[in-house]
Amino acid sequence: MNDFTEKLIEKKTILAGKVLNVRVDRVLLPNGKETTREVVTHPGAVAVVPRLADGSIIMVRQYRYPVGEMLLEIPAGKLNYGEDPDDCAGRELEEETGYVAGKMTKLGSIYSTPGFSDEILHLYMAEDLRQTAQNLDEDEFLAVETYSSQDIRAMLADNIIQDAKSVAGLLLAGLK
Amino acid sequence: MNDFTEKLIEKKTILAGKVLNVRVDRVLLPNGKETTREVVTHPGAVAVVPRLADGSIIMVRQYRYPVGEMLLEIPAGKLNYGEDPDDCAGRELEEETGYVAGKMTKLGSIYSTPGFSDEILHLYMAEDLRQTAQNLDEDEFLAVETYSSQDIRAMLADNIIQDAKSVAGLLLAGLK
Repeated sequence: MNDFTEKLIEKKTILAGKVLNVRVDRVLLPNGKETTREVVTHPGAVAVVPRLADGSIIMVRQYRYPVGEMLLEIPAGKLNYGEDPDDCAGRELEEETGYVAGKMTKLGSIYSTPGFSDEILHLYMAEDLRQTAQNLDEDEFLAVETYSSQDIRAMLADNIIQDAKSVAGLLLAGLK
Repeated sequence: MNDFTEKLIEKKTILAGKVLNVRVDRVLLPNGKETTREVVTHPGAVAVVPRLADGSIIMVRQYRYPVGEMLLEIPAGKLNYGEDPDDCAGRELEEETGYVAGKMTKLGSIYSTPGFSDEILHLYMAEDLRQTAQNLDEDEFLAVETYSSQDIRAMLADNIIQDAKSVAGLLLAGLK
């Protein structure tokens, strides 16, 4: 395999934010030339496909400020510092939807947008669900909606579900 | 439907970069409280699933600086300012892989990571492929690799393909 590695020359932090860090790094390309790379670092996140016994899927609808729209997504949340993704998946599922999973299957880990960010999303499928109580963060607003497997498939084919991790997670769960 | 809209109070640009703009905005939450949102704006991009007559898929392998790894992805590229995504899809496919598509089918448009960015990815499937010549940008380094549909399916199920847009695009193409 060719080595296309880009080597760091100098890091420059532009933003050390609540969630994001942003850097503009000077790097050396494989052809010996120099360029800059704008990089957004992120703590990583989990996303969960909650599947009921009849195949229905529990989704959440929430406002996404960067895109200015209400989006229909699978439940998800950022990793706390040092948190195990497996623990985070159970915690976020219960907080956002009010369900606890008897069985949690890892679907894989994907990079949301590796061209400019290191954000990694750990994807799970949750089954044997038992209802408890939703427990949102104080500043978190979302609606829980349940859809049949046929509706989910139609919403994927018709581009009604527009969130990349939800498209990937739902379709990967279908391979299991 | 509940209105969970967050209203802009004040925008603050932190970075006006080559590719990314980064802002920290003050916003008003639905509960009347104030918070900040860290937002990365991006020109948007296209990604293409190039399917040969026998069902094989043409992929590209390239170094992704933010994650420090060589990733296997479907061909993709950023939109030029004002560029039509349909035109961009054909251009990027030919530049990166050296193939021209007789038939291009839109699979949908997805947000790569709507929690912190407005990046939208327009996904296509390219068929009736005719080989011309790869024509990379001067500072672009990638290897073209072709995989059977069985190999693609196994690499999706086994989490070998880790790029979200590629997972979503390949699986959405399978619904067609």
